[in-house]
Amino acid sequence: MKSAELADLGQQLRVDSVRAADAAGSGHPTSSMSAADLMAVLLAHHFRYDFDRPAHPGNDRFILSKGHASPLLYAAYKAVGAIDDEELLTFRERGSRLEGHPTPRQLPWVETATGSLGQGLPVGVGIALAGQRLERSGYRVWVLCGDSELAEGSVWEAAEHAGHEHLDNLTVIVDVNRLGQRGPTRHGHDLDAYARRFQAFGWHTVEVDGHDVDAVDRAYGEALSTTGQPTAILARTLKGKGVEADQDREGLHGKPLPDADEAIAELGGPRDLRIEVHEPLAARVLHAVRAGHLDLPTWDLGEETATRDAYGHALTALGTARGDVVALDGEVGDSTRAELFAKEHPERYFECYIAEQQLVAAAVGLAARGFVPYAATFAAFLTRAYDFVRMASISGAGINLVGSHAGVAIGQDGPSQMGLEDLAMMRAVHGSTVLYPCDAQQTARLVAAMADLDGVRYLRTSRGESPVIYGPDEEFPVGGSKVLRSSDDDRLTVVAAGVTVHEALAAADALARDGIHVRVVDLYSVKPVDRHTLRRAAEETGALVTVEDHHEEGGLGDAVLDAFTDGRPVPRLVRLAVRTMPGSASPEEQLHAAGIDAEGVAAAVKLLVEEAIVR
Amino acid sequence: MKSAELADLGQQLRVDSVRAADAAGSGHPTSSMSAADLMAVLLAHHFRYDFDRPAHPGNDRFILSKGHASPLLYAAYKAVGAIDDEELLTFRERGSRLEGHPTPRQLPWVETATGSLGQGLPVGVGIALAGQRLERSGYRVWVLCGDSELAEGSVWEAAEHAGHEHLDNLTVIVDVNRLGQRGPTRHGHDLDAYARRFQAFGWHTVEVDGHDVDAVDRAYGEALSTTGQPTAILARTLKGKGVEADQDREGLHGKPLPDADEAIAELGGPRDLRIEVHEPLAARVLHAVRAGHLDLPTWDLGEETATRDAYGHALTALGTARGDVVALDGEVGDSTRAELFAKEHPERYFECYIAEQQLVAAAVGLAARGFVPYAATFAAFLTRAYDFVRMASISGAGINLVGSHAGVAIGQDGPSQMGLEDLAMMRAVHGSTVLYPCDAQQTARLVAAMADLDGVRYLRTSRGESPVIYGPDEEFPVGGSKVLRSSDDDRLTVVAAGVTVHEALAAADALARDGIHVRVVDLYSVKPVDRHTLRRAAEETGALVTVEDHHEEGGLGDAVLDAFTDGRPVPRLVRLAVRTMPGSASPEEQLHAAGIDAEGVAAAVKLLVEEAIVR
Repeated sequence: MKSAELADLGQQLRVDSVRAADAAGSGHPTSSMSAADLMAVLLAHHFRYDFDRPAHPGNDRFILSKGHASPLLYAAYKAVGAIDDEELLTFRERGSRLEGHPTPRQLPWVETATGSLGQGLPVGVGIALAGQRLERSGYRVWVLCGDSELAEGSVWEAAEHAGHEHLDNLTVIVDVNRLGQRGPTRHGHDLDAYARRFQAFGWHTVEVDGHDVDAVDRAYGEALSTTGQPTAILARTLKGKGVEADQDREGLHGKPLPDADEAIAELGGPRDLRIEVHEPLAARVLHAVRAGHLDLPTWDLGEETATRDAYGHALTALGTARGDVVALDGEVGDSTRAELFAKEHPERYFECYIAEQQLVAAAVGLAARGFVPYAATFAAFLTRAYDFVRMASISGAGINLVGSHAGVAIGQDGPSQMGLEDLAMMRAVHGSTVLYPCDAQQTARLVAAMADLDGVRYLRTSRGESPVIYGPDEEFPVGGSKVLRSSDDDRLTVVAAGVTVHEALAAADALARDGIHVRVVDLYSVKPVDRHTLRRAAEETGALVTVEDHHEEGGLGDAVLDAFTDGRPVPRLVRLAVRTMPGSASPEEQLHAAGIDAEGVAAAVKLLVEEAIVR
Repeated sequence: MKSAELADLGQQLRVDSVRAADAAGSGHPTSSMSAADLMAVLLAHHFRYDFDRPAHPGNDRFILSKGHASPLLYAAYKAVGAIDDEELLTFRERGSRLEGHPTPRQLPWVETATGSLGQGLPVGVGIALAGQRLERSGYRVWVLCGDSELAEGSVWEAAEHAGHEHLDNLTVIVDVNRLGQRGPTRHGHDLDAYARRFQAFGWHTVEVDGHDVDAVDRAYGEALSTTGQPTAILARTLKGKGVEADQDREGLHGKPLPDADEAIAELGGPRDLRIEVHEPLAARVLHAVRAGHLDLPTWDLGEETATRDAYGHALTALGTARGDVVALDGEVGDSTRAELFAKEHPERYFECYIAEQQLVAAAVGLAARGFVPYAATFAAFLTRAYDFVRMASISGAGINLVGSHAGVAIGQDGPSQMGLEDLAMMRAVHGSTVLYPCDAQQTARLVAAMADLDGVRYLRTSRGESPVIYGPDEEFPVGGSKVLRSSDDDRLTVVAAGVTVHEALAAADALARDGIHVRVVDLYSVKPVDRHTLRRAAEETGALVTVEDHHEEGGLGDAVLDAFTDGRPVPRLVRLAVRTMPGSASPEEQLHAAGIDAEGVAAAVKLLVEEAIVR
């Protein structure tokens, strides 16, 4: 396209952004208008994509990190012929694919859900890593960011990662319109300020007038020809560009233009230019996936092994069987045992250093490219990435998160290292699966099972060793549980998971010697829970005692309630959990102090029996 | 001290670090040894502090961001006479003040709990802001970081904030020992790499051999004499420095030295040097706290107001009454209504831009200095700072967090902007308070009440307007609830909070017209819950239906269980919550689609009555 046509296309994208927001009565037209020329030039001259075949392995990947500028994205979809004008005007209506912030749920051209700022670039890094190290089909990743969102630390985790890995297949375009939501950004139109930051992290930078289509064209060309470094294009733009009364003005963020008709007229009225997007590069087949026989490790009954060790060994075996399995580390691979995978499959191991947001974002990016990522760090430190986990669930991303060092059982290191909120955090994520194994055998089976589930899957592992209690042929369906002790005389049911299973068993055996029989359920699937078994235990034993190495809110104790919230009778409940702030102490002392060791469980049961609170 | 003495002091800190870890059988002596000279010179020559009066307003503030190097901190406490050798050797024992990672719970010289990397600098920024803008007593903030933790984005949020605010009272000392936990860092001993990054964010930098005590001394002097900029001292060090067999070697992270006695001998054996720390600057009185009459705003019954508006107005009034109240914004002050406070009290308003980790960390820092911070952003985006909230609870920090735009009720913007996990996240924090008001009057009272609670307090506000249902004299104790509909014929109890209170009331009134009476409880205090009222409702009506604008896990539905987990009979329970992933739609459509509007509540109640599931 010639310059005049490109400029005209930019105006069309503006007009359609204004129209979409006006039809919706909400949305962000001004944030769309600033980036319209950047988008027009990208799509018309540099982006390689087959909109009829979004799964084409050679397709470039585009992420609108400033997700609130969705009208611009949808206007672009119209210009390439992916949607029609009628659909454009369904923006933000109930049931429309064109949501307030883009999600890939119904739009096949969206790589990841955005709308929480500072996430597009980290996920883009994940996709660029897939392109660079695994797929090698030559596609580029383009991320359009706002300037405000560069205040998010996650952007600099991503910048560091991309610079260090020399991701020259990645370009970030920063729409520096100098205005955030409530007023000016820190750096206004000082493009140099942003350039200095990106350069410091090893990026090539280009500063450009974002409304000069020829200059923008040259900037993209420079990005394409830059090797060994990712490129940041810093584009000076005006929010609301093209409408004199609105452009570069505060107080117009996130609102339809005050007078849309006048604005459209000033922008030259509606147009119907069509962009012929370049074809993707000749397709290579998507990463070859080996799918061999899965030979999971096994352990002898009674063998003392930490579930984190089992994780490392099982993941390594899974990686041998499946070429689509990749592992990610947050600089604690020796602790989580992810390093075992690294030794066998170094080409599919991604070291993310101490940057948990990037760790999860890279997993989301790899999942978007069809890989099956396992990202592991301490359970406590996954809290650092909760917003990324939340957004992953909106994307429908199939990621596996593994949190080691769960609970007070880690011992001396103290509360900063103890995952004590992780079950609550992960349960609350829509569509998530939460697994908490108690022995090596169970861990290995669950590591394999979680690979093919939908949505976000979480596995909680433990630091300390515990005896293997299951045989190698035992099955552990997700949503199941195991009844480990049972009799006709059970006075109640103790529900445990992970480290407390062993405590519950010891308590049950001690109580049995005193003539008090209790059922013990290993609730390794914390979400979904095994409603059938819990209901049956409630009916047959009348009461449930839950015991967990987690704060008392949102964990196992709350999870069992999932079996009883349809109005049926609810059993009596007693919840044993970590109720005080732990300090340093040995694992045994910690469990004892929290009242969740065998002695604590037995004491609680005895009290209930003696006080005749249970039958 | 002379150079030789300083070097000797550094050796003493090493020896005591080795001894402490050896006594404990765990800990991080090698990470302590790399920073020992940096610590020795700081304490002996530059740090101004009265260890007998940790509350002295002129005291400098020191934060060990690399909290795992706690043996070094405790060795320093011994050298200044704050603890004795006997206590040093209680390191990591149960009940000892000397925890694996430092916390201020029992140690008055610790400003904030560390151990989750990348948090010390952001909290230090909060303290430096207090010093620069509010206290002005001339103290300096010194933060000792590891090099590995510079991969955390939160460090760069802090660097950006400190550079932008010209915090020349802040010095970060980076112990560049080139080795992380599992191996080398990204940049090894390339001090320039770190210098470029800090400089890009507006910092003065000094590169130095971290084992050359004279050079370190000069570097601190340069930091002290630098105005208008914070300073980063980048110190080249060796992990395990001083013990030939261990220094600069991989595989020795987080372990006592293999042969402690030999190492101690090589380090020259135990010493008992005593540091005379410089006195703090002449004390000014701690920030003058106005404590005037609190004149909270009031609203007329039936007036339509959003609780976020009430938050802004109430906080402004609180700020007028109390000089210790400060407000922080994550660049959404027009949405959260924190901007109302900014207009009245600009000197106590801290704009943190789109950097939620720094937002919460600044609040923690301000709280450490005795202020009462209110930090607000969208509820959804507080997930970004969950690790900081978790660590705040370990610190015992008294911070107020306010999450606006809760739930699907925000409407068209879609799920990325909806707080749907926030109640679960905040409930699971130890010692937290979780409040969710339904009208303006209640909001205002709770904003005032939360100021003086212990621990982390969370207030959830709503975007849309709702009618005022409480009079201006109504009291709302934390841990209380309000029974809004009640009769002798109640078939069950509907428990609601926030936006669903209004839906529950409408449902109750509609049902009453059909002859079905239900009790309605406004559970504005989600944690702690009003056990008494819930138990009475259970006894008198037999069943509870909870209705919440939140995912079904960890929120209101789970919270009511807190009243019934001591083995007493549990009522029948039905939980109405957001069970599917919402898209864009109007607020009314969203509530309806989730089944949590009046119609959904009424339908659920009718079903229970008709199926005779309830009496």
